[in-house]
Amino acid sequence: MQKHFKKRSEKGGLPPGTLAYVGEKKVEKVIITVFDYDSEQYEEKELKSIEECFPCKDTPTVTWINIVGIHQVEIMEKIGIHFGIHSLIMEDILNTRQRPKMDDLDDYLFIVLKMLSYNEEGDEIDTEQISIILGQNFVISFQEKEGAVFEPIRKRIRKNKGRIRKEGADYLAYALLDSVVDNYFKILEQIGERIEFLEEELVENPSTQALQEIHRLKREMLFLRKSIWPLREVISELERGESSLIKETTVIYLRDVYDHTIQVIDTVETFRDMISGMLDVYLSSISNRMNEVMKVLTIIATIFIPLTFLAGVYGMNFRYMPELEWRWGYFAVLFLMAIICIGMVIYFRKKKWL
Amino acid sequence: MQKHFKKRSEKGGLPPGTLAYVGEKKVEKVIITVFDYDSEQYEEKELKSIEECFPCKDTPTVTWINIVGIHQVEIMEKIGIHFGIHSLIMEDILNTRQRPKMDDLDDYLFIVLKMLSYNEEGDEIDTEQISIILGQNFVISFQEKEGAVFEPIRKRIRKNKGRIRKEGADYLAYALLDSVVDNYFKILEQIGERIEFLEEELVENPSTQALQEIHRLKREMLFLRKSIWPLREVISELERGESSLIKETTVIYLRDVYDHTIQVIDTVETFRDMISGMLDVYLSSISNRMNEVMKVLTIIATIFIPLTFLAGVYGMNFRYMPELEWRWGYFAVLFLMAIICIGMVIYFRKKKWL
Amino acid sequence: MQKHFKKRSEKGGLPPGTLAYVGEKKVEKVIITVFDYDSEQYEEKELKSIEECFPCKDTPTVTWINIVGIHQVEIMEKIGIHFGIHSLIMEDILNTRQRPKMDDLDDYLFIVLKMLSYNEEGDEIDTEQISIILGQNFVISFQEKEGAVFEPIRKRIRKNKGRIRKEGADYLAYALLDSVVDNYFKILEQIGERIEFLEEELVENPSTQALQEIHRLKREMLFLRKSIWPLREVISELERGESSLIKETTVIYLRDVYDHTIQVIDTVETFRDMISGMLDVYLSSISNRMNEVMKVLTIIATIFIPLTFLAGVYGMNFRYMPELEWRWGYFAVLFLMAIICIGMVIYFRKKKWL
Amino acid sequence: MQKHFKKRSEKGGLPPGTLAYVGEKKVEKVIITVFDYDSEQYEEKELKSIEECFPCKDTPTVTWINIVGIHQVEIMEKIGIHFGIHSLIMEDILNTRQRPKMDDLDDYLFIVLKMLSYNEEGDEIDTEQISIILGQNFVISFQEKEGAVFEPIRKRIRKNKGRIRKEGADYLAYALLDSVVDNYFKILEQIGERIEFLEEELVENPSTQALQEIHRLKREMLFLRKSIWPLREVISELERGESSLIKETTVIYLRDVYDHTIQVIDTVETFRDMISGMLDVYLSSISNRMNEVMKVLTIIATIFIPLTFLAGVYGMNFRYMPELEWRWGYFAVLFLMAIICIGMVIYFRKKKWL
Amino acid sequence: MQKHFKKRSEKGGLPPGTLAYVGEKKVEKVIITVFDYDSEQYEEKELKSIEECFPCKDTPTVTWINIVGIHQVEIMEKIGIHFGIHSLIMEDILNTRQRPKMDDLDDYLFIVLKMLSYNEEGDEIDTEQISIILGQNFVISFQEKEGAVFEPIRKRIRKNKGRIRKEGADYLAYALLDSVVDNYFKILEQIGERIEFLEEELVENPSTQALQEIHRLKREMLFLRKSIWPLREVISELERGESSLIKETTVIYLRDVYDHTIQVIDTVETFRDMISGMLDVYLSSISNRMNEVMKVLTIIATIFIPLTFLAGVYGMNFRYMPELEWRWGYFAVLFLMAIICIGMVIYFRKKKWL
Repeated sequence: MQKHFKKRSEKGGLPPGTLAYVGEKKVEKVIITVFDYDSEQYEEKELKSIEECFPCKDTPTVTWINIVGIHQVEIMEKIGIHFGIHSLIMEDILNTRQRPKMDDLDDYLFIVLKMLSYNEEGDEIDTEQISIILGQNFVISFQEKEGAVFEPIRKRIRKNKGRIRKEGADYLAYALLDSVVDNYFKILEQIGERIEFLEEELVENPSTQALQEIHRLKREMLFLRKSIWPLREVISELERGESSLIKETTVIYLRDVYDHTIQVIDTVETFRDMISGMLDVYLSSISNRMNEVMKVLTIIATIFIPLTFLAGVYGMNFRYMPELEWRWGYFAVLFLMAIICIGMVIYFRKKKWL
Repeated sequence: MQKHFKKRSEKGGLPPGTLAYVGEKKVEKVIITVFDYDSEQYEEKELKSIEECFPCKDTPTVTWINIVGIHQVEIMEKIGIHFGIHSLIMEDILNTRQRPKMDDLDDYLFIVLKMLSYNEEGDEIDTEQISIILGQNFVISFQEKEGAVFEPIRKRIRKNKGRIRKEGADYLAYALLDSVVDNYFKILEQIGERIEFLEEELVENPSTQALQEIHRLKREMLFLRKSIWPLREVISELERGESSLIKETTVIYLRDVYDHTIQVIDTVETFRDMISGMLDVYLSSISNRMNEVMKVLTIIATIFIPLTFLAGVYGMNFRYMPELEWRWGYFAVLFLMAIICIGMVIYFRKKKWL
Repeated sequence: MQKHFKKRSEKGGLPPGTLAYVGEKKVEKVIITVFDYDSEQYEEKELKSIEECFPCKDTPTVTWINIVGIHQVEIMEKIGIHFGIHSLIMEDILNTRQRPKMDDLDDYLFIVLKMLSYNEEGDEIDTEQISIILGQNFVISFQEKEGAVFEPIRKRIRKNKGRIRKEGADYLAYALLDSVVDNYFKILEQIGERIEFLEEELVENPSTQALQEIHRLKREMLFLRKSIWPLREVISELERGESSLIKETTVIYLRDVYDHTIQVIDTVETFRDMISGMLDVYLSSISNRMNEVMKVLTIIATIFIPLTFLAGVYGMNFRYMPELEWRWGYFAVLFLMAIICIGMVIYFRKKKWL
Repeated sequence: MQKHFKKRSEKGGLPPGTLAYVGEKKVEKVIITVFDYDSEQYEEKELKSIEECFPCKDTPTVTWINIVGIHQVEIMEKIGIHFGIHSLIMEDILNTRQRPKMDDLDDYLFIVLKMLSYNEEGDEIDTEQISIILGQNFVISFQEKEGAVFEPIRKRIRKNKGRIRKEGADYLAYALLDSVVDNYFKILEQIGERIEFLEEELVENPSTQALQEIHRLKREMLFLRKSIWPLREVISELERGESSLIKETTVIYLRDVYDHTIQVIDTVETFRDMISGMLDVYLSSISNRMNEVMKVLTIIATIFIPLTFLAGVYGMNFRYMPELEWRWGYFAVLFLMAIICIGMVIYFRKKKWL
Repeated sequence: MQKHFKKRSEKGGLPPGTLAYVGEKKVEKVIITVFDYDSEQYEEKELKSIEECFPCKDTPTVTWINIVGIHQVEIMEKIGIHFGIHSLIMEDILNTRQRPKMDDLDDYLFIVLKMLSYNEEGDEIDTEQISIILGQNFVISFQEKEGAVFEPIRKRIRKNKGRIRKEGADYLAYALLDSVVDNYFKILEQIGERIEFLEEELVENPSTQALQEIHRLKREMLFLRKSIWPLREVISELERGESSLIKETTVIYLRDVYDHTIQVIDTVETFRDMISGMLDVYLSSISNRMNEVMKVLTIIATIFIPLTFLAGVYGMNFRYMPELEWRWGYFAVLFLMAIICIGMVIYFRKKKWL
């Protein structure tokens, strides 16, 4: 996860507003799909060149341009110029190290989000930056790689399900936001399962692997938090409805996403508390083990050390040792040893060490 | 308790406002009871179908519709349509993973609460979502399962006790809120007793069970906190009396519930502090035990190891060892050993290890 | 102290505003004393029945009714009705589990405070709820038990000392508040002395008793904090002078109490920090002791174990062991042992273990 | 330092506004010095009785009355009456347990500060309360004992250096504040040096003295914080310039002191973090030492215990033990022991214990 | 790093506004360079005396005066007088212990920043104070030593790249701020790499060096935080655009720097969390090692102590010990020992100690 904190400086020194891709290239080819719809009809097409979608800007229908792969600076530049997007905003879209934020530029809103997903091995969380431009009757969304998250929205447009075809571009932007936030719940469920699994393991077998898993989880929560906390403010700002681009009727939907975001943050905080509780459990079970080991050592040692001493005494070679001559000396010593041993055991029982 | 963090994603992908039950089904049959009252008369009935209660909406009397079991989507849909409740609100009622909140939709207020109760075994806290719709002269309350919490309110309506029959729907909503908050005190008392019991046990016998109980309590406090903290804001918002549905005279009662909520939160925070103090007590008593064990081992070992060495010396088989030939050699050695032993004991006394 | 968190639910289910005493009965008989004074004259009497004080309400003189013992619901009801106090407020007075708070009901102000005092054994902090009703020219104060805290005020009224006889009911209410806050300093001094005493003990002898005392102090600070923090807001609200019952000239006195409250809170926080520092000292001195014990064990064992081995070697019964036959074999071995022993001691010195 | 938290209650029960000195007497005689100056001239004298300075109040020149020693209540009373200072303020001046604060009484401003200095042994921080009354064209400053902090200001007045003679009483008050805050930097430097010294020592030799020094530092930081934090608010309130006593041109100087105060607070917080980091270093180096000790014990014990056992076996007195009769038996056993010993050492090397 | 907290008091006692250099001299000679440009032309020169740049103040072109080395008080004084800068501001520029801050003096803005860089050995972070004066059409920047951070800006001016030549002095000030903030990312990347490296090492080999590195990193984060946190407020204040010196069009650029600052702060906080997590990992791996050592000791001791005792018993010299006479006694005892040994091993296996 360390990699998320690096490579920001690659373009240091360039004048601000210079477009340059900052991040790793995640797809080979840039895919541009366009949805153009109103409540009566809809059109869907995959574009070969970005210019094809320019006429849509001025139609009264809602146009959704979805761009997968943002590493081709030329395409990005064309979009920026045609849709009149400020070069600093274009720079932010291309820089995948952004923090979730919202900028209101009067003519359009710019929203940056983080989409999270487990990688293919399912052991690490991948992050993808999603940028959304919401204009008067168009939405442009930028993804780093293909994913299934927006598929249900596409289906709803195609099948005219729910309100999406009846509402404007702001509702579409809301739907995109909503699907990203819904996706967080999935990630949290998977983490919840890992926590649950780990907790059972901790009680049975507090291994160093468990400790490493705790720290991995802790790190991931840190990372999630960083991605999700700023989102709260982003949506809250949208919901306050100060932009003329957000219609009155959409505000209640945004409030709904806001509630979900708060729920996600709540769960993240609860998970953090649970994980730090697990560390306590781990440490005290380690120290309990230690205690148990020490007790065994102490019991064995305190029983046998005096006995060995006794045996040593009668192993001395002094010429004049009267006990050695006694008929029952050996058995008397064995008996004495048994007494000592039993006494010790009783003592340990009383101390609750046995 | 882990289960509270799961299964939120079941309906991911459905368009917003689609009604779908999210949670576990806790009762078999949906039970609908209606109270219709004013200061002069009251009527109570159990309904077979939800349609029966629709005429009440327009009477000047206060109508309280209580619905136990919210998993039958058809019933919910009918209520939503008849009472003009926004589909997003209906969706929230059906989703039992909500965070306590209050939405003011001008025509009605929507309140979500968490009711807490110990399960039958008395070892885990169950949570139930209670949703309340407060309209002009009606209150609709949704419960996940039957419970005795609202019974005293029913009695007060039947017997015309207190002010409830003299006041409007807003007072009824307050009474529902109040009974839920009062219920928290019961839960806190039970937890208080467990803490008290655990503290005594910790001093006497710091077992691993005690540690697990501490962590269970810690987890429960985490969970309580999550349920109760947002309530504060909910009631504070109601109390500010910005909605025309809340009458002037009811505000003082809401302030009273608000005070109670603060008291509950205060107690939860105090319990949290006490529990984390208990963890400290546990850890230090564990380390004290360890110390005691180590001391015993050290005392036994440091007394007998030198003695055993001495015995070993005189067990050597050298041909020429003058002491062995001495008449009183054996007794001299025994005496020397006694001296060493006594010296050690005095040393340990001085060091306060004995 | 656990008891402070219990028994709140006893009256659960009763309609709000029903008077019922919640708490333990601390005095047998209810004692009602009345002071009636202006700058010229004063009258002091102990009442047999509460009705006797009712005429005072309408005189222009300042009337202070002090009621010790609040468990007789009938008396309380009469007061409530005669002085026109809302039933919810009367309920709060009777419920001794309140949090300090201030309610402005236009006609009168209601203030709840916590009075703290050490119990007779001097080892636990007792809490007593003090409620104050400040009306146009009367003050009613409710105490759970008799105490000397208000005595200086009575003296000042009797002897016409200071400004008290010259000022109105608001100044009297201030004087009551001030004496309660002044009392906190006494409690804090006693705690300060216990902390000081404990600190010295910790360095000399970190016993488990010390640990328990630390935790007792910690618990008491938790409890003090809960009683004192809300007071800050109470007095700050009074001082803002929004109520017409508080005269301009009294505000500067309230600001003075406010400063004292802040000082109390400051000291509580400092004590908390000091106590948690003491826990650190305790834990590290325990671990230091452990270390010392381990060192002694290690030194004894590492010196004698090799020596014992050597003795063991020459205690073997092999027929052919040339050393055994040597004339100076025994002394050579003793010399070797001395060398090893001295070598070890030098090694430990170098390691700074001795 | 414990003493700072005590003795507040000495005057409990006296009516508010009664003058009584709370604190320890630090000087024998009260010293009163007066500076009277404007841009053209200045006069400096030491007064025998306080009455001598009363005429200065009404001259247009700036008058600075500095009073060292505040334990003579009569003098204080006279000042209070002549300069029209509220009795509660005079009480605050006499009570040396104040928290830094600022009161605006329209006619004059009252400022309480804490001056810190190391005591003569240089091992503890002494605190002294400085109270400043800023009137229309006079400043009265109260000190508990003599000190050199205000000397540079006196010099600047005498030599007409800087702007001080050109500005009014508010600038003088600023200069006093500034010199107190500047003094904090000196204290912080000394603490910084102690921290630096301690850190080096901790690495080399983590003794219990070091631990006690850490806790002493921690305690001092607690104490500094308590003295300095409230100052921030005090100066910020002054700087907001709401009082007509503060001229426009002085505000920029106050902002400068404010910046310094923030810097002091910053440093205090950084020191606190550093000290708590040092505690971690101490604890982990203690536990490292323990580890090292344990390793030595384990190595010695695990090498010699098996060898001793072997020697013990051949020390048994069975009649029929074939090995004992062998010609090279003894040497074979010695060789076996050497093998075991070498094996162990290799094992420990592999485990990185050696 | 300790040095950053020292030597502030050097000029204590001087009247405020007295210019005196506080800090270490980092360059020998003061270097003054001037850029004078508008969109059409630019001029760049290195000045011999500061007076040469004074005429630029009144030209309509943008003038950037960069001063490296601020220890020559005379030069500073001349600048202060010519450009009409308040003496307190000049004092702040000369005092290199400032906290980042922004002062709006209507005619000009004063900004203090901290530039961070790794020292030549790459093991410690050096700090340099950068002060910027932004006037109507000039910018004066003060650096403590030469560095390459502003080089890209110079290049952009020379080559007329980006918007810099088209915009005014406010844009130049923004560019300077931006390059300093961009520089933080470089520092953070280096720290990120050190953290990554350290984490790997911790798992493999938790040495005391690693612990010291953790504490060094912790200290550095403390230091970074202190330098960067206040910057947030500085830029936020600039961005709010209340000064007439900041043009409307520049605000969006400042918002961009603000976003970067937030990102830097975010990363610092994340690093802090990661480092404190690493301390946990270190401590628990140390305690795991201890456990392992203890286990080995216990296993060896508990196996051999009873065996040695047995050998000791048959090494006793009693005259009548029947087992000694038995033909197979020796082998029986050896067999018994083997049984005990195997039993122990099985026991430890069951306990999972082996």
